[in-house]
Amino acid sequence: MKKNPHFISHLAHVEIFSTKLEESAVFFKDVVGLEESYRDENSIYLRAWGEYYHHSLKITKGDKPGLGHIGWRADSEEALKEAVKYLESTKFGIGWIEGDVGHGPAYRFKSPDGHLEEIFWQVDRCEIPEEKRSKWKNRPQKNHGRGISPRRIDHITLHSNDVKKDREFYQSLGFRYNEGIYLDANDPESLEIGAWLSVTNLSHDIAFLKGNDNTPGGFNHICYAVESREEVLLAADYIVESGYELEFGGPTRHALAEGFFFYVIEPGGNRFELYAGAHLIFSPDFGPIRWNVKENPNDAWGRVMPWEKDGKMIDDTSKVGLIK
Amino acid sequence: MKKNPHFISHLAHVEIFSTKLEESAVFFKDVVGLEESYRDENSIYLRAWGEYYHHSLKITKGDKPGLGHIGWRADSEEALKEAVKYLESTKFGIGWIEGDVGHGPAYRFKSPDGHLEEIFWQVDRCEIPEEKRSKWKNRPQKNHGRGISPRRIDHITLHSNDVKKDREFYQSLGFRYNEGIYLDANDPESLEIGAWLSVTNLSHDIAFLKGNDNTPGGFNHICYAVESREEVLLAADYIVESGYELEFGGPTRHALAEGFFFYVIEPGGNRFELYAGAHLIFSPDFGPIRWNVKENPNDAWGRVMPWEKDGKMIDDTSKVGLIK
Amino acid sequence: MKKNPHFISHLAHVEIFSTKLEESAVFFKDVVGLEESYRDENSIYLRAWGEYYHHSLKITKGDKPGLGHIGWRADSEEALKEAVKYLESTKFGIGWIEGDVGHGPAYRFKSPDGHLEEIFWQVDRCEIPEEKRSKWKNRPQKNHGRGISPRRIDHITLHSNDVKKDREFYQSLGFRYNEGIYLDANDPESLEIGAWLSVTNLSHDIAFLKGNDNTPGGFNHICYAVESREEVLLAADYIVESGYELEFGGPTRHALAEGFFFYVIEPGGNRFELYAGAHLIFSPDFGPIRWNVKENPNDAWGRVMPWEKDGKMIDDTSKVGLIK
Amino acid sequence: MKKNPHFISHLAHVEIFSTKLEESAVFFKDVVGLEESYRDENSIYLRAWGEYYHHSLKITKGDKPGLGHIGWRADSEEALKEAVKYLESTKFGIGWIEGDVGHGPAYRFKSPDGHLEEIFWQVDRCEIPEEKRSKWKNRPQKNHGRGISPRRIDHITLHSNDVKKDREFYQSLGFRYNEGIYLDANDPESLEIGAWLSVTNLSHDIAFLKGNDNTPGGFNHICYAVESREEVLLAADYIVESGYELEFGGPTRHALAEGFFFYVIEPGGNRFELYAGAHLIFSPDFGPIRWNVKENPNDAWGRVMPWEKDGKMIDDTSKVGLIK
Repeated sequence: MKKNPHFISHLAHVEIFSTKLEESAVFFKDVVGLEESYRDENSIYLRAWGEYYHHSLKITKGDKPGLGHIGWRADSEEALKEAVKYLESTKFGIGWIEGDVGHGPAYRFKSPDGHLEEIFWQVDRCEIPEEKRSKWKNRPQKNHGRGISPRRIDHITLHSNDVKKDREFYQSLGFRYNEGIYLDANDPESLEIGAWLSVTNLSHDIAFLKGNDNTPGGFNHICYAVESREEVLLAADYIVESGYELEFGGPTRHALAEGFFFYVIEPGGNRFELYAGAHLIFSPDFGPIRWNVKENPNDAWGRVMPWEKDGKMIDDTSKVGLIK
Repeated sequence: MKKNPHFISHLAHVEIFSTKLEESAVFFKDVVGLEESYRDENSIYLRAWGEYYHHSLKITKGDKPGLGHIGWRADSEEALKEAVKYLESTKFGIGWIEGDVGHGPAYRFKSPDGHLEEIFWQVDRCEIPEEKRSKWKNRPQKNHGRGISPRRIDHITLHSNDVKKDREFYQSLGFRYNEGIYLDANDPESLEIGAWLSVTNLSHDIAFLKGNDNTPGGFNHICYAVESREEVLLAADYIVESGYELEFGGPTRHALAEGFFFYVIEPGGNRFELYAGAHLIFSPDFGPIRWNVKENPNDAWGRVMPWEKDGKMIDDTSKVGLIK
Repeated sequence: MKKNPHFISHLAHVEIFSTKLEESAVFFKDVVGLEESYRDENSIYLRAWGEYYHHSLKITKGDKPGLGHIGWRADSEEALKEAVKYLESTKFGIGWIEGDVGHGPAYRFKSPDGHLEEIFWQVDRCEIPEEKRSKWKNRPQKNHGRGISPRRIDHITLHSNDVKKDREFYQSLGFRYNEGIYLDANDPESLEIGAWLSVTNLSHDIAFLKGNDNTPGGFNHICYAVESREEVLLAADYIVESGYELEFGGPTRHALAEGFFFYVIEPGGNRFELYAGAHLIFSPDFGPIRWNVKENPNDAWGRVMPWEKDGKMIDDTSKVGLIK
Repeated sequence: MKKNPHFISHLAHVEIFSTKLEESAVFFKDVVGLEESYRDENSIYLRAWGEYYHHSLKITKGDKPGLGHIGWRADSEEALKEAVKYLESTKFGIGWIEGDVGHGPAYRFKSPDGHLEEIFWQVDRCEIPEEKRSKWKNRPQKNHGRGISPRRIDHITLHSNDVKKDREFYQSLGFRYNEGIYLDANDPESLEIGAWLSVTNLSHDIAFLKGNDNTPGGFNHICYAVESREEVLLAADYIVESGYELEFGGPTRHALAEGFFFYVIEPGGNRFELYAGAHLIFSPDFGPIRWNVKENPNDAWGRVMPWEKDGKMIDDTSKVGLIK
């Protein structure tokens, strides 16, 4: 096995578009329990109590919900340069931007399916007012316990019209290919229906699900993590008591990637996932675990994902195909 | 910030010496719930249900308890070569061994304080009999639920007579220095009393505590992880019901590194830690968090570690000093 | 409010019929983790590790699955006499039996719908071999951790062709009527579809669901309790890894009675429920909480119970009606 | 066994004295997360989110911390009359009071050691504003998640200069004697050092610890319950982050009564306990379990209670003796 590039250290932030910016802000601040770091006319910047950077979520006014961009932190300043050099050698590189509130210069690129992304090194640490500071030096602030109160961003899940192409592109950036769903897992040429990849020890930092409407850059959900499954269960009640509906009957466990989770649609139209208990992956040659779509790998206990409603599957044998 | 070397992917196995090999085997198999992979006259090889490699623990007959050696898996075959090249350029490299049951050729080296270690790439996957295989493809075997049933090895904690030297050596191998304890955290020249380092996103893969008896290569504990704090609590009862004593009053939470844990001395004389709930570290420039020893950073809720008994501290202001 | 009779202290045991006695025994001993107290040619007697009596479950060979009988422990010897006096004054009393393995003389009666029951005072404590005894005097034995390892029986849920009649009969025995499901909760004359009652502080010791096939004495499930929701989640995986299927997608939370639970059909054909986290009821005038069947009170997060499959509801508006 | 009186259904409320009423109110409302039901010049009335009555805690200005009175809800109106008849036949009855905010006429009495108590039937349900009402009919209000957010009051623990006398008095009121601590558990005449009693299925509604300063009516702590041990652990962090210290190193598990708990002193000087995971007791002849004080029954994992500090034990062999 050749040496893997280590361009990227982890998922730093995600920008999503909301059709109802203020309602989205209320959901993410009061129900989810994120902290507002900054806001301007078009965007609100948020972070979880356990995060060190200025923000992990940027919500921007939009005509429809979906992905704005994804921000990856480089592994070092030197790694950023190497990453840019590599990206410029592909057709996916776009170029440098000056940065944004909370971080410095970023090199932008597009995934094969058209998701806008950036990689950067210089980042602003969040400024924590005295009264919110933790007693423990290794926590950026107190866990305030407001709302669900996740500790950190976990991952992002996208749609792709060609999962294989996106998966291979991310592997070239140093992501490990941990698990995948295939129409027929025994057929090496089988259509790929899902792919789970990571640069960290998480079960995935990014995942792709097969879209089938030819729209580029599709978005499935953003996920934040709490530290116990008990907190996911408490949060499920809290979501319902706050007036929202859990998708497809509330918490369950993914077989693939193992997270215990639920989904809820935030007021701006985006799917939000809460997560705990996913396994960690340490072995550099762990995957790929090849699942057959008929095995229903998205659920360990026999349920089907919400995007399978109304029979809108990519074909009759699929359990994971998507429709937007 | 310069590019970090990525020689090592993670802690793969630890060898400890036991004065009572059979009793240690019973403890680790029936009470902890590890699986036996292999045994010969002098050693027993064990792994947790969630581990993919042949073994994560080797217990070898010895005159006294302590560390045999530590095995690190390289990040790739190429990374192994680079690591060896680097180690040979230092005074710590020893040379290649043919390997052991469960893994291929390994390059051996000693830490500054004298802990024997090795780095290797080729590893044997565990062979799981049909009846123990999991329904889920991404689990190497079923969680059998026998005893405490941890999922995986977590970290190792050593003694060092010169924490700074060991810490710097590990940093040169690509470990991040996450947290440290100092006699006076505000004094840049202060004596270092503890250091927590990782190559993964764990809060630490290895830690050092200040020894003060000039014995080289000292060992404090080996730690395995379950996936919830509730399981640590259930395990605490199970340990007691199995006839063992929890050290210093059972489960509590580390402030530093955050794990919820307990300690128990296994029959062969080594300290075993069970762990859940430690934070993950994603930022490449997270640390070091500098703790003052007077802050009692080893405990979040006000207790003192068991190695502080009998007043055997390195000096009056210390809360972490060690004595063997 | 008049004084409530306190004839009964709690649910002591349940007898179920199994079409596959040995397979049922393996399920309840190895997968659920009950202890065998006794067996004869036709029956196996089991108890949970946290129970003090000889048995809480008797499984008897039968042509079809279902309820054998229910055993209630009286509140005192004197209370037993009062209960018998009352039962003899109704048409439901049957008469005394000598007892069974594990308990003394019992007075038998039938519920209005025909469920066979008994009430008794004299009971045998379980005999625990030395090596299974707990270190803690207030536990009858160690929690062995084998299989799911529930602590105790929790409740029984039955079918009734006339919920109102059964509910009123149990109230006359001193059970509090905590919660009920109605076709129209605002209509005082509405058809009753479910009733949850208790003599203890549990959310229910017994519940009735509307049957609609005129078969008397119908049985829905028996429930055992673990002490945390995390244990229910661990058990869900264990059930699947043991080769059984969870009904309708695994764990969820009841709105009514609040338990976090899953259902599984044991090899002998009976439904088994595992339970944690149900609320306790202390107020003697707590209920009845009247739920509308359209509110789907059996699930807090939006799912439907397994007995609602195949459209076999008592009518179109029902979410809880039953069919055997 | 004779029939047990069922005068009392459960612990309804406790009044404590605070030397700092406002600071106590802030602690119980913002940190513990109780709801304020009412306040007047001298007292503040509070209840937990899961409680149906007007209040479970009344905090009254006082010169020193300690117990005001204990309020027991009768099992029925008729049971109240029987209780009063019994109490009037003893030397402990005092007489009727008109009631208080939140409940109707109450009959007052004193325990043998001098604790002021009352029993009543008529009680006001809490009035919940529309926006705080739960989606689920069987919850009095939403779990707001503010602070620790316990669901309900659990029990009260008192000091007594003669544990045996108090224990026998409560047994005469229908309390079961579940567990006790003795200087020598094998000696039937041994000094009683602690007693745990209940009228509900809780492990105790009231407990006594041996006081040794001859002050009557001593108070050790009031306890509220959350529903999982994970919540106790989260609360431990929250308490510390809120600026309070956990007593004696934070959460641990009682052997006796089994609760997983921590103690903290509220600003008004009273000890507050948070609790989860205690066992339930169903058998009417469960106890008493007789513990030897040398067995350290207050802790399952080897720690000693905070009232054992400074060597102020009733004698050298005691682990539970008290000093005020």
